[in-house]
Amino acid sequence: MNEQMISKAVEQVLRELNSGHGASHECKCKKHKMSLSIAKALIEKVEQKAKEVGVNVVIAVSDQAGRIVAVHSMDDAYIASYDIAVNKTFTAAGFKMSTAELAKLAQPGQPLYGIQHTNEGKIVIFGGGEPLEVEGKIIGALGVSGGTAEQDITLATYGKEVLKEVIRGC
Amino acid sequence: MNEQMISKAVEQVLRELNSGHGASHECKCKKHKMSLSIAKALIEKVEQKAKEVGVNVVIAVSDQAGRIVAVHSMDDAYIASYDIAVNKTFTAAGFKMSTAELAKLAQPGQPLYGIQHTNEGKIVIFGGGEPLEVEGKIIGALGVSGGTAEQDITLATYGKEVLKEVIRGC
Amino acid sequence: MNEQMISKAVEQVLRELNSGHGASHECKCKKHKMSLSIAKALIEKVEQKAKEVGVNVVIAVSDQAGRIVAVHSMDDAYIASYDIAVNKTFTAAGFKMSTAELAKLAQPGQPLYGIQHTNEGKIVIFGGGEPLEVEGKIIGALGVSGGTAEQDITLATYGKEVLKEVIRGC
Amino acid sequence: MNEQMISKAVEQVLRELNSGHGASHECKCKKHKMSLSIAKALIEKVEQKAKEVGVNVVIAVSDQAGRIVAVHSMDDAYIASYDIAVNKTFTAAGFKMSTAELAKLAQPGQPLYGIQHTNEGKIVIFGGGEPLEVEGKIIGALGVSGGTAEQDITLATYGKEVLKEVIRGC
Repeated sequence: MNEQMISKAVEQVLRELNSGHGASHECKCKKHKMSLSIAKALIEKVEQKAKEVGVNVVIAVSDQAGRIVAVHSMDDAYIASYDIAVNKTFTAAGFKMSTAELAKLAQPGQPLYGIQHTNEGKIVIFGGGEPLEVEGKIIGALGVSGGTAEQDITLATYGKEVLKEVIRGC
Repeated sequence: MNEQMISKAVEQVLRELNSGHGASHECKCKKHKMSLSIAKALIEKVEQKAKEVGVNVVIAVSDQAGRIVAVHSMDDAYIASYDIAVNKTFTAAGFKMSTAELAKLAQPGQPLYGIQHTNEGKIVIFGGGEPLEVEGKIIGALGVSGGTAEQDITLATYGKEVLKEVIRGC
Repeated sequence: MNEQMISKAVEQVLRELNSGHGASHECKCKKHKMSLSIAKALIEKVEQKAKEVGVNVVIAVSDQAGRIVAVHSMDDAYIASYDIAVNKTFTAAGFKMSTAELAKLAQPGQPLYGIQHTNEGKIVIFGGGEPLEVEGKIIGALGVSGGTAEQDITLATYGKEVLKEVIRGC
Repeated sequence: MNEQMISKAVEQVLRELNSGHGASHECKCKKHKMSLSIAKALIEKVEQKAKEVGVNVVIAVSDQAGRIVAVHSMDDAYIASYDIAVNKTFTAAGFKMSTAELAKLAQPGQPLYGIQHTNEGKIVIFGGGEPLEVEGKIIGALGVSGGTAEQDITLATYGKEVLKEVIRGC
């Protein structure tokens, strides 16, 4: 390889990198995919918040396809909260919508009344499930169950908002 | 026409009869029975319409017995929409009624309140499921899920109306 | 930058590109993801083959997460084959293994005897389900049901092998 | 130390006692009860071991009642492994026996043949589930799924054995 050939090769590679299909893409790929390390870090954050709030909850994180990546049940959380937290992730990932929003649409007389019966008991129609988004792309969902409806929503919303920070730390 | 030409023509006609595109009686039978080719053609039509509307949906077609003939999930459709589209066909075929009509009857205080609990989670009580009718005879059902309730209804109604044209083209 | 440094930099960049983190990666991303158009084209191929073999089957394709992308039920296929074809895709995607291989491990006395009971009835332990692989990466699964065990395996294996060609045509 | 400092110190100690990090009696109780912190620490250990072995698994820990405390799914673990890992904890806690032992009893002709049908699909009759014991008392169970049967057993057994050390560190 002579200098000119090398120089040309470098130029081409740089063009490719700059047009966005290169090293930075790799980085983006990671950011746009749920992983166990992201899930664990996010759950830790929500768990800390739950301790501050003074409530014991189950916290679940799924990937974009609604498949569970990690679930933690805080000591003395309700036994029944496990299924609910898991199903909240399915619901939020499944409809790309928070379960609190879905709740409104599922009231009697509203357009999706009855939706809780359509997916073998996996649809939750009250708050506490949030889709997890990075740069406009849903990478998974978070489900929190065990507090009051309001507490669950507060914690799930907190988790949703803190995701960016969590990913930066991974 | 020489002997060879006649012989060829006869052969072709026989081939057509065997492959089911033949006498008018044969044709009539086909019209009154759901088939994979009708289902695929109908789904394509609805898919085209969904693209125009700008929504990614799951489209399912069942036969008269509520058994699925074909399902397509458009890229980026909701994961949860698969079960819903399938169940909309079951509901529409099962009650020979659109799911939008059933929705009205299933509200609190209405005659069929609670019907969503009667068939192992397969009853959908919001719009987007339509029975498919040919000359007054129900041959199957169409289920669309993934848009707003209104979009699902628009697409399912479109599919119902375009069925005649689709069958003519088969 | 002297020649040696440039040369080293180029080498490294080329290594990265070849190992799939570069411009070609973008392209690969498409190839490495199931889509409705791939699923439809693959099902058509398998359907053609089934017609040649003279058997009516249900053909299902899921994505890598085991979520259904498309299902076709050929005319006169067994009603029960629908669930089986769908579950074969779940099994093959779920274990990254053909259901025929799993069948061997699930016999009495073998290491996975009893596995068919572990996932709410979604595990199929006979042939006809195949993971779909592109360049060593599983992008989904194919399930065929309705023929003899041997026919289902023949058709699913055929689909698996024809995938590359199908993707090239998309 | 002035009065204010003392008062603050006392407050902190009281907070700690209330949150459960206090007297030695408290500590003993902890040893005989599964907690989220034990579960997380144990899962981390097994995850490290799985990385050494070079396999991606789902690791689940339940309490003595067979209720899940934590589940982690390593990146690229089998989708189907989630249910299996969870069900292995149910089985091991449910029978106070490793699933590998149960496997032997569940073979055709053996005393528990058919046991996999008795608990709504939650009984796993192959290895990878272990009861977790402290000083002769079962405090929960560990389920590992995703490797070969042998790898799952190795990892679950490792987790069982490392539990004492994990608890000491909590």
